[in-house]
Amino acid sequence: MFAPYIHSLARSPLFTHSLNEHFHSLKHNMTKDIETTAEQGGGAEFSAKDYQDPPPAPLIDWEELTKWSLYRAAIAEFIATLLFLYVTVLTVIGYKVQTDPVKNTVDPDCGGVGILGIAWAFGGMIFILVYCTAGISGGHINPAVTFGLFVGRKVSLIRALLYMVAQCLGAICGCGLVKAFQKTYYNSYGGGANELQDGFNKGTGLGAEIIGTFVLVYTVFSATDPKRSARDSHVPVLAPLPIGFAVFMVHLATIPITGTGINPARSFGAAVIYNQEKAWDDQWIFWVGPFIGAFVAAFYHQYILRAAAIKALGSFRSNA
Amino acid sequence: MFAPYIHSLARSPLFTHSLNEHFHSLKHNMTKDIETTAEQGGGAEFSAKDYQDPPPAPLIDWEELTKWSLYRAAIAEFIATLLFLYVTVLTVIGYKVQTDPVKNTVDPDCGGVGILGIAWAFGGMIFILVYCTAGISGGHINPAVTFGLFVGRKVSLIRALLYMVAQCLGAICGCGLVKAFQKTYYNSYGGGANELQDGFNKGTGLGAEIIGTFVLVYTVFSATDPKRSARDSHVPVLAPLPIGFAVFMVHLATIPITGTGINPARSFGAAVIYNQEKAWDDQWIFWVGPFIGAFVAAFYHQYILRAAAIKALGSFRSNA
Amino acid sequence: MFAPYIHSLARSPLFTHSLNEHFHSLKHNMTKDIETTAEQGGGAEFSAKDYQDPPPAPLIDWEELTKWSLYRAAIAEFIATLLFLYVTVLTVIGYKVQTDPVKNTVDPDCGGVGILGIAWAFGGMIFILVYCTAGISGGHINPAVTFGLFVGRKVSLIRALLYMVAQCLGAICGCGLVKAFQKTYYNSYGGGANELQDGFNKGTGLGAEIIGTFVLVYTVFSATDPKRSARDSHVPVLAPLPIGFAVFMVHLATIPITGTGINPARSFGAAVIYNQEKAWDDQWIFWVGPFIGAFVAAFYHQYILRAAAIKALGSFRSNA
Amino acid sequence: MFAPYIHSLARSPLFTHSLNEHFHSLKHNMTKDIETTAEQGGGAEFSAKDYQDPPPAPLIDWEELTKWSLYRAAIAEFIATLLFLYVTVLTVIGYKVQTDPVKNTVDPDCGGVGILGIAWAFGGMIFILVYCTAGISGGHINPAVTFGLFVGRKVSLIRALLYMVAQCLGAICGCGLVKAFQKTYYNSYGGGANELQDGFNKGTGLGAEIIGTFVLVYTVFSATDPKRSARDSHVPVLAPLPIGFAVFMVHLATIPITGTGINPARSFGAAVIYNQEKAWDDQWIFWVGPFIGAFVAAFYHQYILRAAAIKALGSFRSNA
Repeated sequence: MFAPYIHSLARSPLFTHSLNEHFHSLKHNMTKDIETTAEQGGGAEFSAKDYQDPPPAPLIDWEELTKWSLYRAAIAEFIATLLFLYVTVLTVIGYKVQTDPVKNTVDPDCGGVGILGIAWAFGGMIFILVYCTAGISGGHINPAVTFGLFVGRKVSLIRALLYMVAQCLGAICGCGLVKAFQKTYYNSYGGGANELQDGFNKGTGLGAEIIGTFVLVYTVFSATDPKRSARDSHVPVLAPLPIGFAVFMVHLATIPITGTGINPARSFGAAVIYNQEKAWDDQWIFWVGPFIGAFVAAFYHQYILRAAAIKALGSFRSNA
Repeated sequence: MFAPYIHSLARSPLFTHSLNEHFHSLKHNMTKDIETTAEQGGGAEFSAKDYQDPPPAPLIDWEELTKWSLYRAAIAEFIATLLFLYVTVLTVIGYKVQTDPVKNTVDPDCGGVGILGIAWAFGGMIFILVYCTAGISGGHINPAVTFGLFVGRKVSLIRALLYMVAQCLGAICGCGLVKAFQKTYYNSYGGGANELQDGFNKGTGLGAEIIGTFVLVYTVFSATDPKRSARDSHVPVLAPLPIGFAVFMVHLATIPITGTGINPARSFGAAVIYNQEKAWDDQWIFWVGPFIGAFVAAFYHQYILRAAAIKALGSFRSNA
Repeated sequence: MFAPYIHSLARSPLFTHSLNEHFHSLKHNMTKDIETTAEQGGGAEFSAKDYQDPPPAPLIDWEELTKWSLYRAAIAEFIATLLFLYVTVLTVIGYKVQTDPVKNTVDPDCGGVGILGIAWAFGGMIFILVYCTAGISGGHINPAVTFGLFVGRKVSLIRALLYMVAQCLGAICGCGLVKAFQKTYYNSYGGGANELQDGFNKGTGLGAEIIGTFVLVYTVFSATDPKRSARDSHVPVLAPLPIGFAVFMVHLATIPITGTGINPARSFGAAVIYNQEKAWDDQWIFWVGPFIGAFVAAFYHQYILRAAAIKALGSFRSNA
Repeated sequence: MFAPYIHSLARSPLFTHSLNEHFHSLKHNMTKDIETTAEQGGGAEFSAKDYQDPPPAPLIDWEELTKWSLYRAAIAEFIATLLFLYVTVLTVIGYKVQTDPVKNTVDPDCGGVGILGIAWAFGGMIFILVYCTAGISGGHINPAVTFGLFVGRKVSLIRALLYMVAQCLGAICGCGLVKAFQKTYYNSYGGGANELQDGFNKGTGLGAEIIGTFVLVYTVFSATDPKRSARDSHVPVLAPLPIGFAVFMVHLATIPITGTGINPARSFGAAVIYNQEKAWDDQWIFWVGPFIGAFVAAFYHQYILRAAAIKALGSFRSNA
């Protein structure tokens, strides 16, 4: 009984302080930015604990390789990306079958779920898969997200590479399942592959992928900001919803341009199974674009919005 | 005043520790998998309490049969499945009436809610019904979910069977109400029954049901993982949303293939009321598929993602 | 410093106990019904406080009439119902204008938001208005909800009547605004009034209203169950979302039958401004149906699902 | 160890009291308005801390100008408004391209995301952008919201003006990107600019903008009410969802009237890039309307619903 008591005392201030921080932030939220702890100066011992970043992940952590949890995480990423591609590409093919005026005579125009339904499929799957795998692997399901978190030093290089391989393999298997299920239609309806649409040049496609991935990775960083976590203890649970919506929004906007990649594994898996020249010709756009977008989002979050910028700008305040 | 104080002390470390665990997890979430407590070694007494699974439910618990709460739970499952089928099948029939070009002359193509609206009806009803009944019966509303939770030893055999009977009866009554309300159109528009669509063989239909139910039951297990609960105390309240979205997503993808069952009570109730040969011929797909999918999801969650796997693999780490 | 400490000790066990209760419930939720506190027997003093129902609201509380907060609540109900009707009926009229093939030549079929969009307008407005007014008036925005909560003795008779008057006046003003804004089209497109659609008899319309309102009021009761609140402290904040979804779902299902009332103020306000014979002839359906549905939901929740039933069945358990 | 303990004691009552307050409010929520703390009289010391408004923001705070956090907030508003206009206007243009019967021969009617998809784009982007920037700038992304919060004395004049400039610049850049990406179609499809639609006079357009902005700003005030925050500590995290839905709802209702502004930066940015006479002629509606709506919402919230009214009405209760 005694040890837990001591334990409780030693730990509770962190909690108590955080709660007060929380109430404080509630009152100012939406109306003022919060630099409170850093600027108030006092209470440094506790506030520092609340807000302090975790140390950057090591580039290579050999220790990590000996843990089952790493491989379990890779399995979770593989299964999640498989399910992601399976559900979304099946929705795309099913939509195209149903809206084909040649095949359908009853309701040729609106039989399918529509582009809105396709956008929901992508966004909704990311919502539930991030929710399901966040506790196991972090719920990336996207090499661009993994790359962004690697740039932000949140995951080690080894983990990042292992995840990307698992994601690409999962995407290939997911598309393979769709092809097996939709033999008749898979190839004739484009296989869900990302291709630059007619009337857009490569620069536009690349730009659309960069900005789209920026929206997604910026949301991921916002949702997992340790500073935010210290204030609002509900974020990690709620994070999958805005992350899913970010994917939904970007699909609404850029399906007419590139079919919306913003996820190299998704584009790669579809290209491997579809395996047509056009899909391979444009493939680089769906790797270079998302990686640039993720890099810019990581930079924006770490150096403009976060403490890094404050440190970098150093004595801005005292000089002013 | 003294007793509560002791009480408070005895209990609070669990809470405090959990909170610290929580903050810890916040910072690593999305970036690293969390084996913290198990691997850190220390604090075993408290962490064990946080993460320890509840003991497996007994196969047969005669004691349970004497409790009103069991029967109340069965009533709640009955009513919930009735409302589920009533709203969803009514939406399906209403959609088909409105998009029938023969009946409608004003806006033949887009008069109805669309397949997207149908998918929302299924997903949204699961969201609100799981929300409403989670505290009473656990909010299964689906024999496949009940079966998956039975396989995971979360419910006893008696409870599982009672729930399934209540769910099937509720589904029959729900479809019966729709038939009573939509006399003219019910049979001519397919009665909301699940049937394999033209162009797909039985293997594809079975596969679609297996994977679709896997997505649903995997989400259910993720949302109710006690390990997760210990970290994020908000999950049970939020769980209905991703569970509802999982149903929504699977409908978007597989309505063109099987009409989407992933719920044997839903398929059975519609078949009983519609009572046409084709619906009965394919009925087995909508029982075998979901049960296999639920079994695989339970296995995946319990043996790959959870502690069971770590135990099974035993000294993986020490040997490595 | 001392007084707060005493204060803290006196209060914290309730909190600590509740938290433990909460963790306990987390592990069993979705898998077992929870009678824990009542059945465990011990800890009665604190658990009783957690679960105890508030005393039933008095039928007539003259004291209440002297409080500004009552009138403020009525104003909030008035404004909320006004905004509800304004946005939803404007959406209905706008949809009909855009899908009228005579008026539109460019995209005659799918120009509008669709019935899906109309259903979203009703459900989404209830979501945000319940969210906004829950802290002021309880966020009823619907005489059937007010009636259900009155039956469950959650509000006094005086408050219930005042709310209903405010809701009906708000609905009239909301529809009046739409008529003022859409002069040209308001009457020719049905004024958003609820009418029994062709091909359905009055019994079906009444049944659809009863079940639809049951779904809504059952969700309201589930969301505000004090037993649930004690377990999951997040419910009141999250409650608006499932309540809004309940309205969304019912609209998907019953727009083709009655246009979906489930809210007498909504039906009344539209009838007053539209003022056509058919709308008045069917008006009783949209009062009798919702009130019956709300009554059954209140009864189901209070006597079947809640403690009342356990008490009524008395020694069920001991006799068994 | 000792200092934290003292610290803990000194702070914990606030928290404990608040929790009790919270449980109390849970039981009464949805059924009774809550004046508890104010009316109960006792416990003034703690309750006062919970509910007390932050002091009104100063009109001009020169100190603020020396802080990096102000400029960082302006950058965040700039980027967020840029992304908002980029995604939403791209969705609008893409929809119009796909539904143009001249350009499309395959599925001329339902190829695009529909007006429902456009409404989702606006509402969903506000949801994720408020979520992402709430901790940095408060997440306004809209001069009318900034103006409303300035009227409610939540932000200083300097901050308000800086935000508005950043928002307008961001909107111009966002639309510029869309024009660069959609060269061929941008001007021919209206450039996403807000214009009064045929058949509506200026008074109707102004009224629609006033009420639409009222819905939005009323939701913002409800979500950030410090009184509410003290009761429900989850509000700030959940606030982005109802705020996004408010935007979604208003778009469903008023796209057929004005294209829906309710955000002067959005209307201004589109007008600058589109630069056609009609867009400029109606521009004043999209500034005057939102500002009036925001002012009325701030007044309604502060003087009718909040303590200000209670104070203004003074001894209403004692006199009665």
